[in-house]
This record gives sequence, structure tokens and C-alpha cells, in this order.
Amino acid sequence: MNVKLILRITGVSLLVEAGALLFPLGVSLYYHEDPVPFLLTICILLAVGLGPALLLRPQRHFFTRDGFFTVGLIWVLMSLFGALPFWFCGQFGNYVDCVFECVSGFTTTGSSILPAVEGLPYGQLFWRSFTHWLGGMGVLVFTTAILSSLGISSNFLIRAESPGPVKSKLVPRASQSSKILYAIYLSLTVIQVLLLRLTGMPWFDSLVNSFGTAGTGGFSVKNTSIGAYGNPAAEIIMTVFMLLFSINFAMYFLLLCGKLKQVLRSDELRFFLGVVAFSIVAITINIAPTFAHLGDAVRAAAFQVASIISTSGFSSVDFDLWPEFSKMLLVVLMLVGACAGSTGGGIKCSRILLLLRSARREIHSIIHPRSVSVVRLDGEPVGEDTLRTTHCYFIIYLFTVFVAAIIVGLDDFSFGSTMTAVITCISNVGPGLETVGPMGNFSAFSDLSKVVLSFCMIAGRLEMFPIFVLFSRNAWKKS
Amino acid sequence: MNVKLILRITGVSLLVEAGALLFPLGVSLYYHEDPVPFLLTICILLAVGLGPALLLRPQRHFFTRDGFFTVGLIWVLMSLFGALPFWFCGQFGNYVDCVFECVSGFTTTGSSILPAVEGLPYGQLFWRSFTHWLGGMGVLVFTTAILSSLGISSNFLIRAESPGPVKSKLVPRASQSSKILYAIYLSLTVIQVLLLRLTGMPWFDSLVNSFGTAGTGGFSVKNTSIGAYGNPAAEIIMTVFMLLFSINFAMYFLLLCGKLKQVLRSDELRFFLGVVAFSIVAITINIAPTFAHLGDAVRAAAFQVASIISTSGFSSVDFDLWPEFSKMLLVVLMLVGACAGSTGGGIKCSRILLLLRSARREIHSIIHPRSVSVVRLDGEPVGEDTLRTTHCYFIIYLFTVFVAAIIVGLDDFSFGSTMTAVITCISNVGPGLETVGPMGNFSAFSDLSKVVLSFCMIAGRLEMFPIFVLFSRNAWKKS
Repeated sequence: MNVKLILRITGVSLLVEAGALLFPLGVSLYYHEDPVPFLLTICILLAVGLGPALLLRPQRHFFTRDGFFTVGLIWVLMSLFGALPFWFCGQFGNYVDCVFECVSGFTTTGSSILPAVEGLPYGQLFWRSFTHWLGGMGVLVFTTAILSSLGISSNFLIRAESPGPVKSKLVPRASQSSKILYAIYLSLTVIQVLLLRLTGMPWFDSLVNSFGTAGTGGFSVKNTSIGAYGNPAAEIIMTVFMLLFSINFAMYFLLLCGKLKQVLRSDELRFFLGVVAFSIVAITINIAPTFAHLGDAVRAAAFQVASIISTSGFSSVDFDLWPEFSKMLLVVLMLVGACAGSTGGGIKCSRILLLLRSARREIHSIIHPRSVSVVRLDGEPVGEDTLRTTHCYFIIYLFTVFVAAIIVGLDDFSFGSTMTAVITCISNVGPGLETVGPMGNFSAFSDLSKVVLSFCMIAGRLEMFPIFVLFSRNAWKKS
Repeated sequence: MNVKLILRITGVSLLVEAGALLFPLGVSLYYHEDPVPFLLTICILLAVGLGPALLLRPQRHFFTRDGFFTVGLIWVLMSLFGALPFWFCGQFGNYVDCVFECVSGFTTTGSSILPAVEGLPYGQLFWRSFTHWLGGMGVLVFTTAILSSLGISSNFLIRAESPGPVKSKLVPRASQSSKILYAIYLSLTVIQVLLLRLTGMPWFDSLVNSFGTAGTGGFSVKNTSIGAYGNPAAEIIMTVFMLLFSINFAMYFLLLCGKLKQVLRSDELRFFLGVVAFSIVAITINIAPTFAHLGDAVRAAAFQVASIISTSGFSSVDFDLWPEFSKMLLVVLMLVGACAGSTGGGIKCSRILLLLRSARREIHSIIHPRSVSVVRLDGEPVGEDTLRTTHCYFIIYLFTVFVAAIIVGLDDFSFGSTMTAVITCISNVGPGLETVGPMGNFSAFSDLSKVVLSFCMIAGRLEMFPIFVLFSRNAWKKS
């Protein structure tokens, strides 16, 4: 294990976090709030991060295992330190609550332990939403650059199926594509902020809600989320942007290169749009009787479907009051999740598509045992290794859900609350049903459950494997 | 497709069902009840079944697809006809309800649409439980003889991995092993009847409860199931026999041959017993505070764990009132299910074991990308085809659960009721939680839901693939 390199990368990340904290610090000063929570955290981060970042001179040799360990460590440490401003400000409960909130932020989940957010300092609200934006950016690089080179990310990997130690020669390519991704991410965010402002939403709210949308996070600065604005235009803009941020960013790449045809041929995109369209229609029909105007029902259905499948988790109405059919469909959408290579969470549409096609092939092979058929995605045959990895991803995902649900069950909430709390956390959505519905929160859970749910958020965000590699005895043998 | 052979086998099965109906007919006559429902059904079965069974002279050439179609058809037709006595007797609601009850019987599920069973004619109660016993026998042959030769059943198949058309040369071997299985099944049932009778349970109750145990069905003749007897000795006997009937019957084979060592080496058996032991301890600790004596808590926990993992579904207490931890664990046990090659349902322990080992290998392969490792069961390497089939089994199982839950959601019961209704049906358990808890029933569901849940019961009972093959367009091309 290349300890020096791991320490150095981690140190740099903490310095980046210190830099990021300058923004909420600025917001605090602008609104004449207490800047101490941020100043103190920045000092701590500098004290911890400067040494390893500047002093160590490591070799650049790096193995998969080290990469996973580093990524896991960064996410955990940034959450542990990022929770400090919440803790210092004194309005977020104990330190475990603060960590839960910050993990929820960086993993772009949006589950909150706060019963009410209105009245909190602007600086804190800004930092909370800013972690979504930073987390979304981190995820983009992680899934597109790091995971794809290991053959785990389900869409990009079809082009780069080379598991093995990550050598430094990958870095230039990765950093270049990262820059283009950041540019797209930033541009879309800016456009959304401006559009929201045009609907009459205050600048601050436009900004933080755009952070939450871009990262598909879902922290809001209103107790009743987006519904609080009573602003249909803003809801429609949010709906569109939630969907935009849950599409594979490679599509924007292709669009910029003028390859519209290739975008339209994407199986994942078509599957995603098909699921979205079906869900909106089905839920609209199901909830229409409770709305005075059909248009309102369509808008509410579209907002909620976009919010859940993008794994943002904003709400425009209390969908926990909807009929069970709509709620069950939303829970299934939580598991499905967004497209690979986006900031969204969940199992991911391309994986679901591969699972479905793999199952179909299996049934086909029973009927025609001697025929050999391949599973295709975008017309290209998908390797058996990729399919096996996808199968195992699904298995590990579901097994984690069930084991976590048993432990969270110790808190004795209802079956629906327990199950959807776990699903919403592992899929990085935000709200669940019943106790953790859009008007509820996670404050009533025990510290044990909060730790387990935090684990689920990080495991889901980092595409399961990196986290389980860390827990494998094998990873630590003969280093 | 060999239509003549399919018709003939189906005809013979209906004649067997007519023969089986002589037993409840006898019970009816013994208790001086109206025998007409049974007589009428027997006449109908003879009218429908005699022709195809006696007149057709088919070739013996038979393909997988035909086999699956036949098995699916037999289960459906036997349920449709077996529901007639319920319908004729007039105490079971409409025909859909009667079919649900009969599907639940033959698939050894034990979910009921009856709000109360006490007061029903003895003949009907006998027939209801007898379908469990017959279903259990059918499943034994189906999974051990038919599926194993196709490489689907997860334990037997390790010895017989030869997918392809089922030729008649398999029949002598299959019929011979079937006879031994029947002998074991019958002997265990007789022993249980006698033991239950010794505890003071009436003959009739001992008999029907043993039917329910042997088939891992769970229909009871008391409104509050086994708890109604207030008979701790009977509960303990039931617990032991529920576990005995959820063990791979090949183990009894081996025991009879004196191969105790091989039995003790079985990975599946050890996993099964480990899960049972862990669950009993965990639930006992969780529920102990609500019991006056620890012994009572242990007995209740053991009974419920045995009942759920064996997928019987009897209850000695209302476990829906237990803390959520215990309930969540029980729901997970529903999905895990019994051992392969038993009368129990669920995903099956050997499959769960293969899934876990497969996932572990995947994580291992990320750490050591160049190492090639095989998954083993009982020390033998498991083929990649078997693993892929097992993965797809899990995928199809869970996808079916979610799709069915969305449709059943239309009835607007709670998340817990909807989800556990589907899980308990597909795993052939019986009760779920909340509305469908051990003191609840399925009567309030719509006809659509009852049909969907019946589909789940049959799909789960026939190990998914046969049913999905029938729905595949490919199966019907170029016959």
C-alpha cells in the first residue's frame, strides 16, 4: 500500500475543503452572522491537511485497492470535518447528527435530521447545500474517471474494460475529461440559478436550490421544500433540471461534438425517458382525483417523478399522502435511480437495463439451450465479466438494504419507515415514506441507525464495491 | 410441441386430483356433511380428464419448453378445478377467492382469504390442508427430478448439469427417486401425526396440521392458528417438524445410506441451521421483555423462525405485534426460505449461499484482478453457468416482487401490508405483516391483486423460470 500517496491525496482534499469553506464564510459575513464555526473548521483543516499535502514526496505507483481506500477515506474524512461547522453552530444536535447531515450532503442524498430549517443561519444553510454541489462534482469524476477505468461503472466501462492497477498514465486523460465535466456542470448550474431568479425566487434560494439540483441532493432551505414557494414556474424549471442532471454527462459531451444521432441511440437514455414518461402518466392517473385541475396533477407527478428518479429528493407536495400505488412506484424509482455518469444515485438505469436483458437471455437459453446469445447495450455486445459484475452489484445492493433494514428495525419504526429509510439512503434520494416522508426527518433515529444509514449513503454513493473492498480481509493481506 | 403428450399428462393429473378428492369426500361422509361439492367436482374432473388420459397415444419425445408448459398448466388447472369444492360449498366468497385459496393450498403457501375458519365443514378444512400435502409432494418431484435435470434447481444440479431436451431415458431414474422421496415424506408425516396426537391434539387436527407442516403450507383449522391449542408440546413438535421438512430431502437419502459425514459436510444445511440459530437467539433477546418467562420467549421465537424460514406460515402468537427488528428479520427469512430439494419455498438457502460467495469473489477479484478463483459448494467448484442462472434467479425474483407490489399497491393498503403480501406469496409462506399479519387475511384485496398474488405463488413455487418461459414469445416460435 502506498501510504504516503494516500496521505498526500487526502491532505490535498482537506485543503480543498478548507478552500470550499471560504464560500459559506463569505455568506456568513455578508449576512452579519457568527463566522467562528467556519473559521475554526478552516483552521483545523489547515492544521491537519497542510502537513501531508506539502511535505510528503510519494511515488506515483498506485493500486486499485489503494484507490478505493483513498476515495472511501476522503468521503469519510471530509464528512467528519465538514460536520464541524454544524456542530460549532450548536443548532444541529449532537456530533453524530452533524455527521449524518454532512454525509447526507456530500453523498448528495438530502436526508436531514433537522425538524425545521427555516431560521438557521444563512451560512449554515449555504454550506449544507454547497456540500451537495461539491459532492456531485466529486461523484462525476469518481464514476467517470476512476471507476470506469476499473470496469465497474456500468456505461463508461463498456469502452474501458481493463481491470487492474491504476497506473499514473491514466491521470492525464482523467484530469482532462474532468475539466470538461466541470465546465458542463458549472454552466448548467449557472443557467438554472438565473432561470429560477427570473421566476421571482430570491437569489439566495435560487443558488442553494440549484446546488441541490445539480448534485441531485435535495436539501432545501424551506421546511416544506420547493412546495413552500407556491411557484409553478420554479417547479417546472426544477423538474427539467433534475432530469438534466440525471442524464449521463457523456451525452452533453456528444451533443457538444454535434453527435445528436449517437445521443438518440443511447439505450440507457431511452430507457430512462421511457420510465420517466410511464411513471408520470401512471401517477397522474392515480392522483388526479385529489386535484382540482389536471394540470396541477401532472405538474406534481412530474416534479415528484423527476425528483425521485434523479435521486434529488425535493418535494412540491407531501407525496406520503398519495395513494399506495404512486408511493410504491416512487420507491421502485428510488432503487432504479438515474443514469450512469450523472450526479444521481440508485442502481442506475444502465444496470437495470443490463439486468433485464441478462434475465431475458437466461429465459431464452432455457428455451434454446444450444443457442449462444450475447447481451447488447447501444448495439455493442457486453462482456460476460461486465454482466457478472453488474449481477453482483445488484446482489450486494439488495443484501445491504436487507441487512441495514434489520439493524434500523431496532428503532421500532414501522416497516414502511424502516425499509424506505434504508432505500432512500443507499440510493442517495433523501425522503422516504411515513416517518421519513417528505414532511418528516431522520432526527428520531438512534445513533446506531444514523451510523448505519450514513454507511448506506456512502456505500451507495461510491457504487458499493470500494466500500466492501475496504471491509474485506483480503485487501489487507500481504501489503 | 408435443401437444398430445401434454394433454395426456394433464389428463392423468386431473384424474389423480379426482382420486385425491375421495379423501375429503370420505371425511364429509364421516362427519355427515354435504358430500355434493366433492362428488360434483369429481364428476367434472373425470369428464375432463378421462378422454386425454386414456385415448391419446403420444410419442415420448419431450422438450424443456414442453415440460415447463406442462408443469405450469397442471398447477393452474389443478387449482382451477380444486377450487370448485370451495365454491360449491358457498362459504368461500366468489370464484376468484376460491381459486386464490386453492392456489395457496397447492403452492403450499397458506395465505387465506377466509376471515375465520372455525365452523367450516370438516370436509372442506380437510381438502384445504390436503392440497398442501399434495402440493408438497408435487414440488419434491418437480424440483428434484425435473428441474435438476435442467440445471435450475440449485443443489441437485451440481450433480446433473445437463441443460437440454428432457428425453424419456430420464424417466426411470426420476420415478425411482420419486418413490424413495414419497416414502420419506409419508413416513415423516405419519410420525408427526402420531406425536401430535400424543400431546392431546384431536386426530383430525393432528392430521391436517401435519399436512400443513409436511407441505410447509400453513393452513390451520383454528382462527388463531397453532396458538389456539395452548399446547406447548405440540408447538415444539411442530417447530421440529417444520425444520425437518425444510431440509433437503437428499439428506435423508444420505442418512439412510449411513453417510452421516456427508450430511454434516453440507454447506447448505450448515448455513440453514446457522441462520435458524442466529434468528432464534436474536428474536428471543428482542421479544424477551414482553414475556413473563424466558422459556416462553424462546419457544415463541423458535416456532416463528421455523415457521417462516420453512415457509410454512403457522403462528403460535401474533408476531405482527412484535418489535420491528424481529418482524424485519422474519421478512428477510421469508425471502431466504428453506433448503433446495425440500417442500419449502423462498429463494432457498443454497442459492443465497451461492449469491454471497459469488459477491465475495467479485470483491476479491477487484483486489486481485489477475487471480482466477472459483465459487465452491460442498467443496466442489460450481460452474459459471450455474452461478449465472442463480444470479438471474435472484434478479427475476426481486423484479417480480417490485412489479407485483406496484400493482397490488392499487388497493391502497399500507407499504408494509403491500410489500409483505407480495413477499409472503412469492416465497410461499402465508402470513405477512399488518393487514396480512398472522391474525389478518387476504380477503380485502381486489380480484386483480388476488390474481397477481396467485401468479406470484405459482411463479415462486415453480422456481420462476418455467412460468417466465411461458410468457416468452420465443417459446412459441417455430413449434
